[in-house]
Amino acid sequence: MRYLSKANIQSLFTMTQAIQADKLALSLSTKGDTTIPLRTNVDIPKYNGQSLTMPGYVGGASPALGIKIISIYPDNLAKDLPSSPATMIALDAKTGIVSAILDGTYLTQLRTGAVQGAATDLLARQDAKTALLIGPGGQAMTQLEAMLTVRNLKLVYIFDRDQKRAQAFVQRAKTNFQTKFTTAFATVTSPNEVVAKVDIITTVTTAKQPTFDGSLVQPGTHINGVGAYTPAMQELPVAALQKADHIFVDTLAGALAEAGDLMMPLATGELAKSAIDGELGALVNQDIPGRQSPTDITVFKTVGTAALDIVVADQIVKAAEAQHIGVELQ
Amino acid sequence: MRYLSKANIQSLFTMTQAIQADKLALSLSTKGDTTIPLRTNVDIPKYNGQSLTMPGYVGGASPALGIKIISIYPDNLAKDLPSSPATMIALDAKTGIVSAILDGTYLTQLRTGAVQGAATDLLARQDAKTALLIGPGGQAMTQLEAMLTVRNLKLVYIFDRDQKRAQAFVQRAKTNFQTKFTTAFATVTSPNEVVAKVDIITTVTTAKQPTFDGSLVQPGTHINGVGAYTPAMQELPVAALQKADHIFVDTLAGALAEAGDLMMPLATGELAKSAIDGELGALVNQDIPGRQSPTDITVFKTVGTAALDIVVADQIVKAAEAQHIGVELQ
Repeated sequence: MRYLSKANIQSLFTMTQAIQADKLALSLSTKGDTTIPLRTNVDIPKYNGQSLTMPGYVGGASPALGIKIISIYPDNLAKDLPSSPATMIALDAKTGIVSAILDGTYLTQLRTGAVQGAATDLLARQDAKTALLIGPGGQAMTQLEAMLTVRNLKLVYIFDRDQKRAQAFVQRAKTNFQTKFTTAFATVTSPNEVVAKVDIITTVTTAKQPTFDGSLVQPGTHINGVGAYTPAMQELPVAALQKADHIFVDTLAGALAEAGDLMMPLATGELAKSAIDGELGALVNQDIPGRQSPTDITVFKTVGTAALDIVVADQIVKAAEAQHIGVELQ
Repeated sequence: MRYLSKANIQSLFTMTQAIQADKLALSLSTKGDTTIPLRTNVDIPKYNGQSLTMPGYVGGASPALGIKIISIYPDNLAKDLPSSPATMIALDAKTGIVSAILDGTYLTQLRTGAVQGAATDLLARQDAKTALLIGPGGQAMTQLEAMLTVRNLKLVYIFDRDQKRAQAFVQRAKTNFQTKFTTAFATVTSPNEVVAKVDIITTVTTAKQPTFDGSLVQPGTHINGVGAYTPAMQELPVAALQKADHIFVDTLAGALAEAGDLMMPLATGELAKSAIDGELGALVNQDIPGRQSPTDITVFKTVGTAALDIVVADQIVKAAEAQHIGVELQ
């Protein structure tokens, strides 16, 4: 058994590898070659907490088995602790033996960035040059890295209601990516300043109101809805969904049960279910087509699936074993 | 986060402490101050395997949160690997953050020995001097240790159908316990040679037939049924249950759903449900009485509950943190 910290994972697994792993996970998920039981929630009302356990199995040529543990403790913030601490347990699917314990917070950031990267790679215009990132919180750095990895972007705009937070994010992005990408970063005071002129929009918030004006979206744009993950959250404007030529999701079961972005306009009739093309995995599998023209508007909505954690963790662990990285435990 | 191996656990946590922890766990379980969801099973038919995830919470004065992971891979034995590898994840109930990863195989042996120790302590005659241990497999050493811990035994008989295995176990027991206990150990060629003359009988097998002749059991005997854990397994003879003055279980829900030892005679009418006094936790809580006389025959049947793992692990982790034992990770 080995322990893999964030630094260990970063040293041995690239965003490009994570995007490939996520594509594989979604491909197998769409083929039905996964076993992902309902997660188990244990409430701890005494401490205003909840602990979620998500075990699962992903088949394919190199089967993977794992368990993600995430606890939701809002009061942790006041103690300067993460409000959603996460740990990933990877098991050897051939023997059932725990093979590694991974920093689940970074794994989540990595696989969530990567699933957007997979969608952007498959759906955005090849010549996309500009992007807008809305909501530079804890998930945002890997979201940015994923966009930079799949398209040769010249300029990415960053928006946050807190301008200082946006500026701080730009500084960190420059530090992180200056040797790897030539992209420029700039803050904007409103997303709507640039919605009409960017090629890619990625929104990563837990907003209950759309984060930009959908009527401004121009032909050719690709939009990722990454942050909102409950029926009550909605960060994608209905107008953008109505304009979209293609809408993809990570899993239909997850999106239709958890994605307020889609559930709300489906419930009101503002969006027809037939407007959803299907799962990104079906596009990976080349079972359904994606973008047909440079003027198509495409949308990807993700709420996440344990299959992503399991496949990414499995590939990280195999790389760590080959390179003897991490703390080896007995 | 820290990693605690078997050696770490052995160095900082005694059987006496484990017995106290199990009593606490059963006390809280009986009081309803636990949240133990149904375990989640993930099947991996490709490798003839199954992975079980058991999260849970135990309240009380010092709340505990944890997840036990056990995989069942019968084909592991041919690879010289454990057929039921286990890992315990302990979380801080106050923050939901993983506090430790523990060797789950040893933890299971320890808490299963300790729950029998709790029952033997509460139910066997105080002057018990002799015992019979049937089935010296992987769980047996802690079963023996638990009996030695709670009663001042002069002689323990060991039975296995494989005499060499029984002899090897006796040798290991002598090595393990020679500085701690003065008890003698001896093998027998049939359990029935000694059933009528021992004060305590502990059977730890996965047998589908009773492991001894119940008609031989004498007044004053205490019997522990520890090994059988499915409706199809039965190691306790019906005659012994019929003779028993008191029958206790670890949890009624578990025993009535999983313990073939009780389910089979209950189904045939050979045993009345009213013959089961209740949960050992109720005895710990002094809500119901136990042994009333030196001639009572008492029986304890356990199939296990995640509450035992969670409380024992929590106390081990707290001791490890205080003593800085184990591998500290990041």
